[in-house]
Amino acid sequence: MAAEASRTSEARRDAVFGRWVVFSPARSRRPTDLKSHAPANPSPGAGAAAGAPKPSCPFCQGRESECAPEIFRVPAPPDASPWRIRVIENLYPALRRDAEPPAPEEAGEGEATPGERAVVGFGFHDVVIETPRHDVRLWDLDAAGVGDVLLAYARRVRQLMEHPAVKYVQVFKNHGASAGASMAHSHSQMLGTPFVPPSVTTRLNCMKEVFERLGKCSLCEFQSKDILVSETHNFSAIVPFAASYPFEIWIIPRQHSSYFHEIDKDTALDLGSLLRTMLAKLSKQLNDPPFNFMIHSAPFGVSSSCLPYTHWFLQIVPQLSLIGGFEIGSGCYINPVFPEDAAKILWELDC
Amino acid sequence: MAAEASRTSEARRDAVFGRWVVFSPARSRRPTDLKSHAPANPSPGAGAAAGAPKPSCPFCQGRESECAPEIFRVPAPPDASPWRIRVIENLYPALRRDAEPPAPEEAGEGEATPGERAVVGFGFHDVVIETPRHDVRLWDLDAAGVGDVLLAYARRVRQLMEHPAVKYVQVFKNHGASAGASMAHSHSQMLGTPFVPPSVTTRLNCMKEVFERLGKCSLCEFQSKDILVSETHNFSAIVPFAASYPFEIWIIPRQHSSYFHEIDKDTALDLGSLLRTMLAKLSKQLNDPPFNFMIHSAPFGVSSSCLPYTHWFLQIVPQLSLIGGFEIGSGCYINPVFPEDAAKILWELDC
Repeated sequence: MAAEASRTSEARRDAVFGRWVVFSPARSRRPTDLKSHAPANPSPGAGAAAGAPKPSCPFCQGRESECAPEIFRVPAPPDASPWRIRVIENLYPALRRDAEPPAPEEAGEGEATPGERAVVGFGFHDVVIETPRHDVRLWDLDAAGVGDVLLAYARRVRQLMEHPAVKYVQVFKNHGASAGASMAHSHSQMLGTPFVPPSVTTRLNCMKEVFERLGKCSLCEFQSKDILVSETHNFSAIVPFAASYPFEIWIIPRQHSSYFHEIDKDTALDLGSLLRTMLAKLSKQLNDPPFNFMIHSAPFGVSSSCLPYTHWFLQIVPQLSLIGGFEIGSGCYINPVFPEDAAKILWELDC
Repeated sequence: MAAEASRTSEARRDAVFGRWVVFSPARSRRPTDLKSHAPANPSPGAGAAAGAPKPSCPFCQGRESECAPEIFRVPAPPDASPWRIRVIENLYPALRRDAEPPAPEEAGEGEATPGERAVVGFGFHDVVIETPRHDVRLWDLDAAGVGDVLLAYARRVRQLMEHPAVKYVQVFKNHGASAGASMAHSHSQMLGTPFVPPSVTTRLNCMKEVFERLGKCSLCEFQSKDILVSETHNFSAIVPFAASYPFEIWIIPRQHSSYFHEIDKDTALDLGSLLRTMLAKLSKQLNDPPFNFMIHSAPFGVSSSCLPYTHWFLQIVPQLSLIGGFEIGSGCYINPVFPEDAAKILWELDC
C-alpha cells in the first residue's frame, strides 16, 4: 500500500475533544498486520451445546432469580424464549440508587465552584442483557435485534433523565476481560451520575469554541472523505481524523442531533444495522479484539443555546495497544495507524 | 480497620485536574488485600549471575553500540563501570528530531484556534538508562543514585527547553510490560512535544480557576492530613484526595515551585530518597505491581502571571485495575480504595 510507505510521523488535534494525538507509523508493523494477541472470546459457546445456558452464568435465561432486580424486559414472540433483552440493576453498583441524592443547590452551585469537593455516591448503575443466550455476541443478532438493544438503552436513559439529581448517563459496553468485562455473556451498562463527567465538560467546551470561532458544529461536516468507512441513510461511520486509538470508529448521525435518547424506531434499526457491520468488521480484521463502545450525548438540561454545537455519536475503541506513562501524564495518545489507512482497510473488508 | 467498614460510595473532585472520581469500596475486597496479579518483574536477575549483563539487552553495560546515539552520560568512579546513567535517543521515536519543526506562527496561532489541525511529527523522544546493571531496579539504588537520575532528567529537560519549537517535555517511567515498558532494563523516557498536551492544558485551566476564585495554589495546602504518607524537608508524599487510581501517590514540593527542571542537587537528593521509599512501599504492599510515574511541570514560556498557580509534582500510578468503557467515555474513574485507607496502609508500612 503506497499510502502507508510514504507516511511519516504527524501530530493531529480533533475538533470534538481538542486532543492532540501523535501518529507514529514507525512504531508498528503494517496496519494490515495489527491484530489482537488476546482475543476477547475465541469460542463463546465452547463446551456447551449451541444455545444452551452456561450453568454458572446468571445472565442466561432461566437464572433470572440470581440477578439484581429487573427494571424492564423486552419480550420475545410467544413461542420463543420468555425475553429477548433484560434491563436490570447492577449487583455491584459503583453508585447507589438508595443513597441520599445531593441537594439541587449543592450539586448546581458546588459544581460551578472550583476546588476539592465530595458528594455522596448517589447514582444509578444498570446492566442491559442483550440476549438470553450465552453463545451469542451483539453482532450475531440481526439489525432489528441490535436496534432493539439501542432502543432499550434510550428507554432507560429517558427514565433516568426524570430523576432531578441525574446530570448525565454514560452508556457503554465492555467486550472481553481486558476491556473491563467481568461477565462473558453479552451485555452493556449505563451509569447515571450526579455530576457532569470530565470528558463531557471537555467535549462541550471544545465544540462550543469551534462553533463560536468557526460557526459550525464539529460533527456536521468532516474535513476529508478519506476517513469514511460506511454510510447509511441516517449515519456515517468514520475513523476520526485524530483517532486516539488504532482502528477507532465513530458512528455519527448525519442530521444534527444533540440527544441519543430521542432516537426513534426506524433510526435505531438503521443504527443497529451499521453498528452490527462495524463490530463484525473489527472482529474480522483484528482477530476478535477486546473492545469498548461508548455513547456520547449531551448532558440533561443544557440551555437551548448549547444545542447547535452538541451532536451525539457512538465511539468504538478496540483495545490493541497499552497505555503508558506518556498517555496517563499528558492525555496525548500515540497511534501507530493513520486514520486514512484504517478507514481504507475497513471500507474494503467484506462483512 | 473501622474506617473501611463504615465507608460507602462517594464522588470526589480534585483541585488540580478538576476530575470527578467515584470511590466504590463495595467493588473490591479489603484495601489490604489488593495485590497485583501480574508482578512486573518477579525476578529481574533470574538466570544470570548477579550483576552480569543479559546477552540480549542493549541497555546493559558493554552493548552501548547497539543503542541509538548517546546524548550524555553520568560517569561512574574510575574503578567502577564506565557509566552510571546514560541519556540516549529512542531507537523507535514517536516524534522525530530530524523533521522540520512547525513555524513559530503556525504553532502559536494555530494552537489557539480551535478545530482540526495537523502538524509534522517533530519532537524529541529520549531514554534515560538508570543503571548499567540489568538486575537493578530504580528503588534498589541508594538515595543519591535516584537523585542523580532525577538530575539527569532535569539536565535533559533544560537542553530541550532551548529549542524554540518545544512547548513541553513529558518525563515518565513505565515499569512492567502491562504498564507499557518494552524493555525490562530499568529506564525512563521523555518526549519533547511541539504542542502543549491536553492534560497539561486541563490542569493549568483548573489550577487557574482555583487561584482566581479561592486565592490559593491547589498544591500549596492539603485539605486533610489523613492522606499524608511521608514527608521530608522539601517534599510531601500523599495519596491525593480524589485519586483516580488505587494507591496512587503524588510527591509534591512543599515550597511553591513551577518547574521541575530548576531542581538543585540537594533537593534532588531529598526527592530521590522519598521516591525510592515510595516505590519500595508500593512494591512491598502490592506485590511488585506494574506502574507508571510522570512528572507534571509547567509548559515552557508561560507568562509570569501563571507562575503563582503552577506547582510541579510527581505522580505514581500502580496498574491494578482495568480501564473500561465508563472511564474511556466519561473520563471519570472508579476507585475501589479510599485515599485515607491507602495512605494509612502505606504510612504504616516499614520500608
